[in-house]
Amino acid sequence: MAVTLAELAEHIGAELHGDGTCTVGAVAALERAGHGDVSFLQNRAFRKFLKVTGASAVILGEEFLRECPVAALVMEDAYLGYARAAGLLHPHNPRVPGIDPAARIEAGAMIASSASVGAFSVVEAGARIGEEVEIGPNCFIGRDASVDACTCLGAGVTICHGVTIGRRCIIQAGAVIGADGFGLARDRDRWIKIPQIGGVRLGDDVEIGANTTIDRGALEDTIIENGVKIDNLVQVAHNVRIGEHTAIAACVGISGSVVIGKRCMLAGGVGIAGHLEIADDVVVTGMSMVTKSITEAGTYSGGWAAQVAPQWRRNVAALRRLGRRPPQGNGTAHE
Amino acid sequence: MAVTLAELAEHIGAELHGDGTCTVGAVAALERAGHGDVSFLQNRAFRKFLKVTGASAVILGEEFLRECPVAALVMEDAYLGYARAAGLLHPHNPRVPGIDPAARIEAGAMIASSASVGAFSVVEAGARIGEEVEIGPNCFIGRDASVDACTCLGAGVTICHGVTIGRRCIIQAGAVIGADGFGLARDRDRWIKIPQIGGVRLGDDVEIGANTTIDRGALEDTIIENGVKIDNLVQVAHNVRIGEHTAIAACVGISGSVVIGKRCMLAGGVGIAGHLEIADDVVVTGMSMVTKSITEAGTYSGGWAAQVAPQWRRNVAALRRLGRRPPQGNGTAHE
Amino acid sequence: MAVTLAELAEHIGAELHGDGTCTVGAVAALERAGHGDVSFLQNRAFRKFLKVTGASAVILGEEFLRECPVAALVMEDAYLGYARAAGLLHPHNPRVPGIDPAARIEAGAMIASSASVGAFSVVEAGARIGEEVEIGPNCFIGRDASVDACTCLGAGVTICHGVTIGRRCIIQAGAVIGADGFGLARDRDRWIKIPQIGGVRLGDDVEIGANTTIDRGALEDTIIENGVKIDNLVQVAHNVRIGEHTAIAACVGISGSVVIGKRCMLAGGVGIAGHLEIADDVVVTGMSMVTKSITEAGTYSGGWAAQVAPQWRRNVAALRRLGRRPPQGNGTAHE
Repeated sequence: MAVTLAELAEHIGAELHGDGTCTVGAVAALERAGHGDVSFLQNRAFRKFLKVTGASAVILGEEFLRECPVAALVMEDAYLGYARAAGLLHPHNPRVPGIDPAARIEAGAMIASSASVGAFSVVEAGARIGEEVEIGPNCFIGRDASVDACTCLGAGVTICHGVTIGRRCIIQAGAVIGADGFGLARDRDRWIKIPQIGGVRLGDDVEIGANTTIDRGALEDTIIENGVKIDNLVQVAHNVRIGEHTAIAACVGISGSVVIGKRCMLAGGVGIAGHLEIADDVVVTGMSMVTKSITEAGTYSGGWAAQVAPQWRRNVAALRRLGRRPPQGNGTAHE
Repeated sequence: MAVTLAELAEHIGAELHGDGTCTVGAVAALERAGHGDVSFLQNRAFRKFLKVTGASAVILGEEFLRECPVAALVMEDAYLGYARAAGLLHPHNPRVPGIDPAARIEAGAMIASSASVGAFSVVEAGARIGEEVEIGPNCFIGRDASVDACTCLGAGVTICHGVTIGRRCIIQAGAVIGADGFGLARDRDRWIKIPQIGGVRLGDDVEIGANTTIDRGALEDTIIENGVKIDNLVQVAHNVRIGEHTAIAACVGISGSVVIGKRCMLAGGVGIAGHLEIADDVVVTGMSMVTKSITEAGTYSGGWAAQVAPQWRRNVAALRRLGRRPPQGNGTAHE
Repeated sequence: MAVTLAELAEHIGAELHGDGTCTVGAVAALERAGHGDVSFLQNRAFRKFLKVTGASAVILGEEFLRECPVAALVMEDAYLGYARAAGLLHPHNPRVPGIDPAARIEAGAMIASSASVGAFSVVEAGARIGEEVEIGPNCFIGRDASVDACTCLGAGVTICHGVTIGRRCIIQAGAVIGADGFGLARDRDRWIKIPQIGGVRLGDDVEIGANTTIDRGALEDTIIENGVKIDNLVQVAHNVRIGEHTAIAACVGISGSVVIGKRCMLAGGVGIAGHLEIADDVVVTGMSMVTKSITEAGTYSGGWAAQVAPQWRRNVAALRRLGRRPPQGNGTAHE
């Protein structure tokens, strides 16, 4: 894949400074790029590499243009330019259509002729696999599940019965979508299991990370709306609903029946308690625990930055002393 | 599956107010239920849906009886009633017994005739699979492992060599039971691995969530007692022992050699440090870290509720100021 | 496997007190050991078992020698002695070399004759599998990946295209190495995916835990150096570099482009924010969040120990009161 800089500039929405007939074929980091590569500069910390880059062209903001020793593709958000350039120059390499002879396709499964199903994958009765879908090896698609056009599943993905997946989704290896929610009722000293008869519905353009788990609903469906991006090792419990274009980093845990708005961002390790509602455009910073509904857009935090251990221990001790004191003892003097 | 309200009332232990010959065939949420459905009302927040429900009957507490426009099944714990009704009306749909021709059963494995083994699963020599056990596709049952009667394994479950699983357990997709514990000894600047020669024993009626990992013991076995319920993406390290009917929510991490009592509840994201003992009937709230043994029943916490970021930053700054001050400086004036 | 105590003493580097011709064949815990077993005493809490042990020999420090009723193998670090003894007496039980007839080996894959590949595993074109490598069942080795000599993969391991794994590594079941990093760029209200064209390189003697995920790099490779040991359910994001002999406990999350030094130890549940550098010989205690680069060796903390809930709530309330007060309001009176 090679494009001229003129074509690239138009594709990514940048203003070209340099020879539009020159061609590039790959993206590369500033300090490693060579002839035929296009690079980018977004983070000021990498500015030092600009002068010495071997790239044929660099995507950058106007503020760096004067320093650029090679062809420049100027646009406000250079990182977005890089993303677009990478998407153009490094397109997904599709699998050859067809069903591997070692796949198990049950009678009554419907598989589009342009789809591919890898070796040792199972597609159960009633499942529907759309056009250009790619299913890796060792996957499981349960009965009556559906995977819509152009969606890709990595190796060892489990899609349980009745789950529906939209178009152009990407499900990384090992993800489990539609296992039973953790529904239990206490019956004296023991737990009884509540059948989980809801499903899971993923919209279009959803990405699910490796070994992430999304549980089926208890009565209704768990819903992941269009454009949601979820990283690895995330837990989404039963009956959660996640709004469009929300992004969720790794190791997040979302409890049952939580409703998350659109365009939210949850950083790594965040936990959200059950039955809460999170408004649109909420950002939760790393390792915070959300215990109340959030009704307004904004940034929310609850995590502590690590310090050198003796200092941290002093903080802990100080708070414990404070917590042992009756509130009014300190308060009256100051408030 | 359809039952009369009289049968249902008896099965769940409720007092029927209404026509006992009317039949229901499914459970459904109050606001979505239609003719032939039974619903329930436990949480006061859903009371508004009671008046307008389309359900044929509703399981509820006595306090809501007067408002119920349809047949009522009155019992103290309506949620338990719902669980029992759902179990009756939505029984597990068993796989057809038999070994898939594409499963690999090694010589010397014993598989009951009423068991089922899915495609592309491997059962190694010496393994024993009990009556009515269901093993999904792409599972691995290592040598000399045993899975007792009526236990169900989802897709892609790994049961390592020598692990024993009791009766009526449910192991969700992707769980790994019996991988090596993280046993290392420092030998100058490097680590040497300690062979993990213990096993894992699960009792009866245990549920293990999707992609959860339970490590084999170093010398002795890791033990999960009867009735324990574990959610998704939980880590149980080597030589842990978890007491009967304890429930563990998602994303919990339990370090090596921890002993947890009976009927405990660990909320999501809890971490427990190594070699601790936790008494019976202990509740640990979300994202708490347990660093000392807990000898008394009760509720324990260590997590911080997220706040809007500027307020949270003020808290952090306040504690850091406090931690920098010598303890007596503040203490003398107030204590 | 049985060795004389003289041989064992030499192998582990201990001084033997007792009959060097006596043989032992297994390691066992002090309180469970019987004739023919060798045990160890490191933790003072187990001292009570020394007097009554049934072991044929005990590895211990000099301070316990007088109390030892059986043959003693004296060395400073008895735990290391135990590790070495266990490694000698319980060697890994290798799979029989050969490719299972139900494995799928694509044309152009190179597999050493002494390697084994389990049933229902897929090795794609261009992949290289070294001497004595063991690949469990249901694994996936993508195109052009390589697994070097004597490395073992458990069941259901995914090694994506182009990933390279060194010698003598152990990859536990369900691990996913080389799935796409979580690379997104915001394009107005939606996210666009950034192709992840880097790879993953694991050095020699690396261990990766069950269901752990290590993402491929965006442009460059994610790198795990020699001797790194990673526990279960750990997330390593794209472009992370982890230095030699660093050990990482379960449930840790490491964000993109983090560089971790040599011989570090991250306890369970730690989170590290993106683009940070961590020096050599850094220890981070459980459930701490690292938000700034760490430039000096030492121990760092940010986790809170759980307390009984009412006390914990008082701490939380006290901090919130403090955080609401202007900093100088308190400071002037006391400092």
